[in-house]
Amino acid sequence: MALPATMRALLLKNDGYSRTSSGTVLEAMEPYVEAGEIAVPEPGPKQVLVKVKLASINPSDVMFVKGLYGQPRRQGQPAGFEGVGEVVAAGSDPAANGLAGQRVAFATGLSNWGSWAEYAVADAGACIPLMPGLRDEDGAAMIVNPLTALAMFGIVKDAGEKAFIVTAGASQLCKLIIAVAREEGYRPIAIVRRDDQIDMLKQLGAAHVLNATGGGFAREMAAVCKEENPRILLDAVSGPVASTVFHVMGKGARWVVYGRLDASETVIKEPGQLIFMDKKIEGFWLTQWMRSGGAERRMAAVIEAQKRFADGRWKTDVTAVVPLDDAMERVAGELAKPNGKVFIAP
Amino acid sequence: MALPATMRALLLKNDGYSRTSSGTVLEAMEPYVEAGEIAVPEPGPKQVLVKVKLASINPSDVMFVKGLYGQPRRQGQPAGFEGVGEVVAAGSDPAANGLAGQRVAFATGLSNWGSWAEYAVADAGACIPLMPGLRDEDGAAMIVNPLTALAMFGIVKDAGEKAFIVTAGASQLCKLIIAVAREEGYRPIAIVRRDDQIDMLKQLGAAHVLNATGGGFAREMAAVCKEENPRILLDAVSGPVASTVFHVMGKGARWVVYGRLDASETVIKEPGQLIFMDKKIEGFWLTQWMRSGGAERRMAAVIEAQKRFADGRWKTDVTAVVPLDDAMERVAGELAKPNGKVFIAP
Repeated sequence: MALPATMRALLLKNDGYSRTSSGTVLEAMEPYVEAGEIAVPEPGPKQVLVKVKLASINPSDVMFVKGLYGQPRRQGQPAGFEGVGEVVAAGSDPAANGLAGQRVAFATGLSNWGSWAEYAVADAGACIPLMPGLRDEDGAAMIVNPLTALAMFGIVKDAGEKAFIVTAGASQLCKLIIAVAREEGYRPIAIVRRDDQIDMLKQLGAAHVLNATGGGFAREMAAVCKEENPRILLDAVSGPVASTVFHVMGKGARWVVYGRLDASETVIKEPGQLIFMDKKIEGFWLTQWMRSGGAERRMAAVIEAQKRFADGRWKTDVTAVVPLDDAMERVAGELAKPNGKVFIAP
Repeated sequence: MALPATMRALLLKNDGYSRTSSGTVLEAMEPYVEAGEIAVPEPGPKQVLVKVKLASINPSDVMFVKGLYGQPRRQGQPAGFEGVGEVVAAGSDPAANGLAGQRVAFATGLSNWGSWAEYAVADAGACIPLMPGLRDEDGAAMIVNPLTALAMFGIVKDAGEKAFIVTAGASQLCKLIIAVAREEGYRPIAIVRRDDQIDMLKQLGAAHVLNATGGGFAREMAAVCKEENPRILLDAVSGPVASTVFHVMGKGARWVVYGRLDASETVIKEPGQLIFMDKKIEGFWLTQWMRSGGAERRMAAVIEAQKRFADGRWKTDVTAVVPLDDAMERVAGELAKPNGKVFIAP
């Protein structure tokens, strides 16, 4: 296939990190990215060039373009950590070359980025050839959320208690976690902010669903903790809701922060609990998990994820597929809608 | 020796825990303890009765009488976790019986309490027979602080970096830690609240001493962290000072809270650091360390502590020895003075 010299892409407008902590809501695209035309990149020996069919918008993408993620931005590069597409050029290494012509899910996070573009470069090791029956929407969201879900559910399993708590319970990520947890006999306790999410999550497998905006939230949460004795809080929000949940959890509780959806102040309500109740506060970052765990653990999770999407145990809920040319205008609005994922179609 | 039927003691006025978090400053004795006369306790088979010569007042005693410690109060029982005295009666078990007539350092924390009294009961396993040359002041403070110092310095050693940070740097506990650290080639960074403590701690072995009340504290602290790369913060204060220190520490920092000297709000300034910088927040409690580590580790620390006091590498600085009959009136005032320990002499 003849490749064009240039391509359309959404390009980062800033370098490095932001100095202000503005939360992870994308109020608009303009401050952070702009539509532009740049040269089609060339893959290195162990890389492939993917013609992007769909690109995901994950919370980590939003944090990254805002300069709040753990890796610095580079002005003028395309944004986007994940997508699905066809390999149209490949490096000379057999690992890369063997992918030529295949439809792959790919992640760009560790070496370079660029799925919000007509073409993207990915390491061969970060590409997953897809079974024919798998939907593009599932393929485009098959790495970041699914691996995070499986890795964090691993924390729950290692902690040895059946019950655990998730905040932002109606996110795509939490829905994946809840589905796996139900299957393995665990009891997820989901915190949400809308009553209409309660039944949906109960049907999916949540043992309890609590609305954090209700007046009696702290009391209800304490009662559920007493009943279920959850040890792990998988927390995407931080701020006062997570503080309250951690405060009412019992001995040995671990607050695992993986997101910052609430930019307001995060308080340790009673530091004495760290001393006398052996509570702990820590973080989870998929990039770190990928770096530290070795290729086998990563590969096992990737295979597990593809199986789950292929046989229907997991499914990606779609809010919108936005054409690349409309992305500047429409993405922020689509992201504000609850319960589903937003994709960009170059 | 004929024992009296009753004894003078400082008795707890409240049961259980306090509902309010009032910090660990003892503003007065009256709200929490009262002078009284009660029956001399009888030791169980594996226990001894100690005629108390000196009783310590540790920060943990203050937290306990205020209802802020990890064990519930029992109204009418004597307070006091630690002391020195002579074993005047012993249980039938050989472990207890062998201590009869000896001068011992003792801790009452795990089974019952009562060193703020003429007589106290202690488990035989929580008594350390003392070498003749050792001062009573060192014997009376030979368990709680020294074991905490050795246990927490163990955390520093396990973390593998030479530099570490202590808050409340001029406390007796921190002085013990700093002395051990210097000896083993570590670089303690001490945070204090008074300029006149700076030289004293530098002479003792601190690599840096910073006054947290100074205007440029956060900036200075950041510069020291950049230079020394400390991984561990051993924190007795919590609140804004500790928050600031943790915030400017580098990747992999661990905030180990063991005290609550500052009752004001404790904020995690940037929860994103937990995610992207692998920072962690946890607690340390000597009681838990004693329970979890086995008798050998405990005994090794006890022997190490006695050696250090006997050969002069450690020394207990004394602010005051207050007679039991004056304790209600004088203790709060003496505790407010910096740099030394306060004892009660029954």
